[in-house]
Amino acid sequence: MGMKFADRMEGMKGSAIRELLKLTEQPDIISFAGGLPAPELFPIEEMKQVCMKVLDQDGRASLQYSATDGYLPLREKIAKRSAKLGFKADAKDILITAGSQQGLDFSAKIFINKGDVIICESPSYLGALSAFRAYQPKFVEIPMDEDGMIMEELEKALDTYTNVKFIYTIPDFQNPSGRTMSLERRKRLMELATKHGIPVVEDNPYGELRFEGEIMPSLKCFDPNNLVILLGTFSKILAPGMRLGWVIASPEVLQKYNVVKQGADLQCSSMAQREVNMFMEMFDIEAHIEKIKKVYGNRKNLMIETMKKEFPESTTFTNPVGGLFAWATFPKEIDAAVLLKKALEQKVAFVPGETFYPNGGNANHARLNYSCMPEDKIVEGITRLGKTLKAM
Amino acid sequence: MGMKFADRMEGMKGSAIRELLKLTEQPDIISFAGGLPAPELFPIEEMKQVCMKVLDQDGRASLQYSATDGYLPLREKIAKRSAKLGFKADAKDILITAGSQQGLDFSAKIFINKGDVIICESPSYLGALSAFRAYQPKFVEIPMDEDGMIMEELEKALDTYTNVKFIYTIPDFQNPSGRTMSLERRKRLMELATKHGIPVVEDNPYGELRFEGEIMPSLKCFDPNNLVILLGTFSKILAPGMRLGWVIASPEVLQKYNVVKQGADLQCSSMAQREVNMFMEMFDIEAHIEKIKKVYGNRKNLMIETMKKEFPESTTFTNPVGGLFAWATFPKEIDAAVLLKKALEQKVAFVPGETFYPNGGNANHARLNYSCMPEDKIVEGITRLGKTLKAM
Repeated sequence: MGMKFADRMEGMKGSAIRELLKLTEQPDIISFAGGLPAPELFPIEEMKQVCMKVLDQDGRASLQYSATDGYLPLREKIAKRSAKLGFKADAKDILITAGSQQGLDFSAKIFINKGDVIICESPSYLGALSAFRAYQPKFVEIPMDEDGMIMEELEKALDTYTNVKFIYTIPDFQNPSGRTMSLERRKRLMELATKHGIPVVEDNPYGELRFEGEIMPSLKCFDPNNLVILLGTFSKILAPGMRLGWVIASPEVLQKYNVVKQGADLQCSSMAQREVNMFMEMFDIEAHIEKIKKVYGNRKNLMIETMKKEFPESTTFTNPVGGLFAWATFPKEIDAAVLLKKALEQKVAFVPGETFYPNGGNANHARLNYSCMPEDKIVEGITRLGKTLKAM
Repeated sequence: MGMKFADRMEGMKGSAIRELLKLTEQPDIISFAGGLPAPELFPIEEMKQVCMKVLDQDGRASLQYSATDGYLPLREKIAKRSAKLGFKADAKDILITAGSQQGLDFSAKIFINKGDVIICESPSYLGALSAFRAYQPKFVEIPMDEDGMIMEELEKALDTYTNVKFIYTIPDFQNPSGRTMSLERRKRLMELATKHGIPVVEDNPYGELRFEGEIMPSLKCFDPNNLVILLGTFSKILAPGMRLGWVIASPEVLQKYNVVKQGADLQCSSMAQREVNMFMEMFDIEAHIEKIKKVYGNRKNLMIETMKKEFPESTTFTNPVGGLFAWATFPKEIDAAVLLKKALEQKVAFVPGETFYPNGGNANHARLNYSCMPEDKIVEGITRLGKTLKAM
């Protein structure tokens, strides 16, 4: 015999982003690589008041085991806030998870047998692809344009593959592309999903961080058969360090997420759940989100303006109306991994695009995060990157 | 097509314990069913000071994303405390997990293909069995006596099955039986594991909660080939509501746990990790553990004395020297699930033993938790249970 790992481990490697994050932790690097919220906006003084009140009012319960589905007042508040995305939810439709990342892992665990198909945008969120890979799916990538997934391509895929277990999409300010799915396509996607009876995992970490215009409705608004599994998180609207997100799904499906949560870690932190709940009771989270949006919107504008000025004309880029990321496309002959090596010599970092394509290829892209660098560094970093690009 | 779940979901049901916990949350129930620490011992005032200091000194980092492997000062303290279990560890050997439950889930994810064998004690911890079941193993149960797993039976199993992926054991104050593996058997178990090159998942949530005698050495003390994967947790020595545990393993194996952690939830709460670390800097966790041990030891003694007085002579029970649970064995004709129904009419709860046997059977047992009921309720509850038993 001897030590043998499960077959699933063969396809699992450390995330390139996480490895990069280590590299870019050097303080002199201007990093557009991570997906970090701006730490200077964290409500630290407010959290101090919150912690004191939670421990004063509810200390024993906040340090004890609690129910797997999550703290009821917190679930009630999440349900109520769903109105922002255009639908009604009830606390009983909600499971609290360790960030939306845990919702992604559970989605694959619940649906995927080896070889089953997951349909996703091309490119798609690396963290989701990593989580899904542990369950050995086949990824079918649907090309995108500026309005998101191209529906004719989705239709073809649904007609072609008989073992599609779910469609994975980030309709709002997609990671990595920054693109947003149009209203028309949201409706069409749900028509197709409904016709085929295919669940849709809608990952929505950024939807509330819209810099202009109205918040777009969730796919749940066009979901007569309750096929949408919506993943949300406090990571981008409050603080990722709390590790709190949620799943909203039909009772039949949510029950599966609950069972999986029990086995995975029993429950989320009783204390963290009470703290986030108390934050929303004591303070105005909507005002907090407005503050974040303003800062990120300014940073995004500055990044786009600087790219227009400093990047060669052959490079194009998206102009997101929300979220944390822009997406640059270089001429075909430029390998962004090579560009990164040169950029790191200039103390600038980003994530090469190829890692966001589950089946590889497409080396001529870069994901650029604008949320966590101050404005002077954005100008300086993009300028350096432009020079490096031109030198290639 | 249509909504289809993965095959693994067929074997996964909600935990009987978690469902019971809901029932027994009624305030008039005397519950020996859960595995809850005594909430009156939680260091609430200390945690208030801890939270303030963490947010004052390190507010931004405690609310931000952080490294997957965990907060270095916390890992250093865990490494240092390993000396209590008789071995040396280094911070780099440690991954922080969401309780030891997450370590159990990851162990199965990393090692188990469908049909692979997990060897475990008979009976064994229900939460582990549930976590493992998601990966569709075959469970081979090894009978126990008062000194733990019977080594001749383990040897037979290792000689019989060619696809054993790991041995799962709780050597100290086992859940559910309360039994402790003798020193001699620890050495023998590791001889056998070493001979066959089989990893050993040592689950040690209770080892430090010893009421009398010396703390027993971890299996890691007899592990020349670094086969032991040790799971620890702050749940029983500090507070389960924080959801913080750890894995200690060889570099090759720990790297797998790290990759799986990335996909599962990226990292544990940055804030909770800093809080537990700060608790250990500001206060004496060893003194806190002494306080817990004293209270639990008294409760255990009282439960055993009352069982001796009130239970029929045909019922036997273990007399644990640490941990949270005692284990009662009734005459073969008594079904503990029936007993539970009758006991609930008398407002007393426990967990019927059958759920702890992965392959079923053995209905004539009960797990009795003594850590979280005050002393008068222990006497009253055991007395009522004795009357119910005698009436059967």
